[in-house]
Amino acid sequence: MTIVETKYAQLADAAKPLNLRGGARLGPVTVAYETYGELNERKTNAILIEHAFTGDAHAAFYHKGDVKPGWWDDMIGPGKPFDTNKYFVICSNVLGSCQGTTGPASIDPKTGKPYGLSFPVITIQDMVMVQKLLIDHLGIGKLLSVAGGSMGGMQAAAWAVMYPQSIHSAIIIAACHRHTAQQIAFHEVGRQAVMADPDWLQGDYYDQAIPKRGLAVARMVGHITYMSESSMEQKFGRKLVKKDALGYNFSKEFAVEGYLEYRGQSFVERFDANSYLYLTKAMDYFDLTEGDRKLSQVFSGVTADMLVISFTSDWLYPSYQSQAMVRALKANEIEVSYVELASNYGHDAFLVEIAEQARAVTNYLAKVYKERVI
Amino acid sequence: MTIVETKYAQLADAAKPLNLRGGARLGPVTVAYETYGELNERKTNAILIEHAFTGDAHAAFYHKGDVKPGWWDDMIGPGKPFDTNKYFVICSNVLGSCQGTTGPASIDPKTGKPYGLSFPVITIQDMVMVQKLLIDHLGIGKLLSVAGGSMGGMQAAAWAVMYPQSIHSAIIIAACHRHTAQQIAFHEVGRQAVMADPDWLQGDYYDQAIPKRGLAVARMVGHITYMSESSMEQKFGRKLVKKDALGYNFSKEFAVEGYLEYRGQSFVERFDANSYLYLTKAMDYFDLTEGDRKLSQVFSGVTADMLVISFTSDWLYPSYQSQAMVRALKANEIEVSYVELASNYGHDAFLVEIAEQARAVTNYLAKVYKERVI
Repeated sequence: MTIVETKYAQLADAAKPLNLRGGARLGPVTVAYETYGELNERKTNAILIEHAFTGDAHAAFYHKGDVKPGWWDDMIGPGKPFDTNKYFVICSNVLGSCQGTTGPASIDPKTGKPYGLSFPVITIQDMVMVQKLLIDHLGIGKLLSVAGGSMGGMQAAAWAVMYPQSIHSAIIIAACHRHTAQQIAFHEVGRQAVMADPDWLQGDYYDQAIPKRGLAVARMVGHITYMSESSMEQKFGRKLVKKDALGYNFSKEFAVEGYLEYRGQSFVERFDANSYLYLTKAMDYFDLTEGDRKLSQVFSGVTADMLVISFTSDWLYPSYQSQAMVRALKANEIEVSYVELASNYGHDAFLVEIAEQARAVTNYLAKVYKERVI
Repeated sequence: MTIVETKYAQLADAAKPLNLRGGARLGPVTVAYETYGELNERKTNAILIEHAFTGDAHAAFYHKGDVKPGWWDDMIGPGKPFDTNKYFVICSNVLGSCQGTTGPASIDPKTGKPYGLSFPVITIQDMVMVQKLLIDHLGIGKLLSVAGGSMGGMQAAAWAVMYPQSIHSAIIIAACHRHTAQQIAFHEVGRQAVMADPDWLQGDYYDQAIPKRGLAVARMVGHITYMSESSMEQKFGRKLVKKDALGYNFSKEFAVEGYLEYRGQSFVERFDANSYLYLTKAMDYFDLTEGDRKLSQVFSGVTADMLVISFTSDWLYPSYQSQAMVRALKANEIEVSYVELASNYGHDAFLVEIAEQARAVTNYLAKVYKERVI
């Protein structure tokens, strides 16, 4: 059992703050990150992994005392697709989150209290800018790859547009180049659930009870969208929690209700309600076309080799969104591979439908390393 | 402009209460209903319309002073599919609702106060039992048809199973014979949103502030599921409410957010939060197979002619659920017509995609009247 530790880097300060996309300035900014494997002498084997909405820097291996490994341990490690015998793998917690990197729960040095809603609204591009500062800080000139699923895939797409000279390739999984009305709508419901909780207190709850009830409801909605209808039916159907017969009352009796409650309750123990608001907003703001540009224009400066992966039963980030990116990349004659993997797991597939995804990523990284680095 | 009025019938009392499926007894029970057209002498032209979740008895024409007609006015009226020149059309508010028929907001005569959570949990079959009492009360021996969409379609299916001798036909639109895990899950999120609202007070809020915030969130989730992803995209996309540029704050700025807020706010003005709990529960309990019977067995006693309609983009009650009913009916050699209508409107289609649905219903009713009545 390999034990790893989270590291921290201060990448901006009050004297030299981040200039955010929304116009605000933010400093100091600390970033939590982990690294696995060894950076080679030529610094050509570094891969940045980008986590999804509620993920963190702990992508693989074990923290001391933990019984569960990091969130993408199936994909990262010796002999795994992101092979730590070959590659130097980095994963950092995104800006605005609550797991080590500066976010709304961090202390604002000006007031000595948590930012709460005075934290500036951030974007996917701001997250990527911070990751670029981290890569600079680590002395890496060009990444072999950036890779992520869901919100992580949006970051990978943004990297390809923002820093084409700094990556050899990008792996975009179960993601999109801009949020649709339905994607915004599901997030808005979650935000309204949080903000309707009287414990939310306009985000100023840090020395009080946390807004658990609203955040749990928000998370429940999310989990419905992460599964396919069919996988939910196979897993739960109309199974009851414990009784043989319906109780004719409002207690939790269907297994799917118990699952959602469990997911909601465990989420509020580990995630900050304001970070929920900021990160969903960042995703909803995400639109590489900025409203009116053609995606093929947006991608015209991309120089990285691209791998795009989607899953057949993912209805939250449906394949057509991946295909739109692939078409726009091809229109620019950019090297792009696209794989639509058959899976019944819905959006969760990128975390659980490992076998084929692993093969695709393994082969792709070997190809890119051979074509672009050696 | 034809003006109609809601009528009321007391169909059970304390001495002769309803025996509900869950074992409870309930009385008195009052039912709100409306009728349109004339019952013919032989009483062979009566059609019962069954409303969806948040509908009411006011299905067509105008109430005095109203500028909007009833909820299915496109389908009911002179020369319309449910042609009031030919048919006697009845629509009643379901048991457990809050629009004239006895429900959790009604006064419990034992206490002189609203039932709240002491109201018994009811089922789709209980709603249908009350409708049968209403039909008896109106002196109608056999209905030409029962018809409804969504929860109304579940009632129509239950009618065919429970009272085969009392209907010539049933029209089941955008419905199912049992709720799936995903359908239960979306409802459970709504219930949890209501129950998380501190104003809900375990359902005992009637002389206090109503639990508006939770109920609005619940309704917002519902409205996402009623539209197709594509129709939401066409209607809203990433349009902004008023500004040209993103505000980088948490105010409502996407048009789809404004739409959901409007829907949530207008809903809380007209609907009782406890009725929301009871009616969603009734739908979640709905399973004509009762967990272990084959649907073809369940339908073996059906004698009515059946019309089943679904819509291509309806992902809340997908076509495969309608098709399962059709197959089970055909297995019993029951007369059944099935139409899958092309529509981009999602589940809302049965209320808005009128033209083809109208043609199907018009022709079907003419056929049934000719074959079964004349």
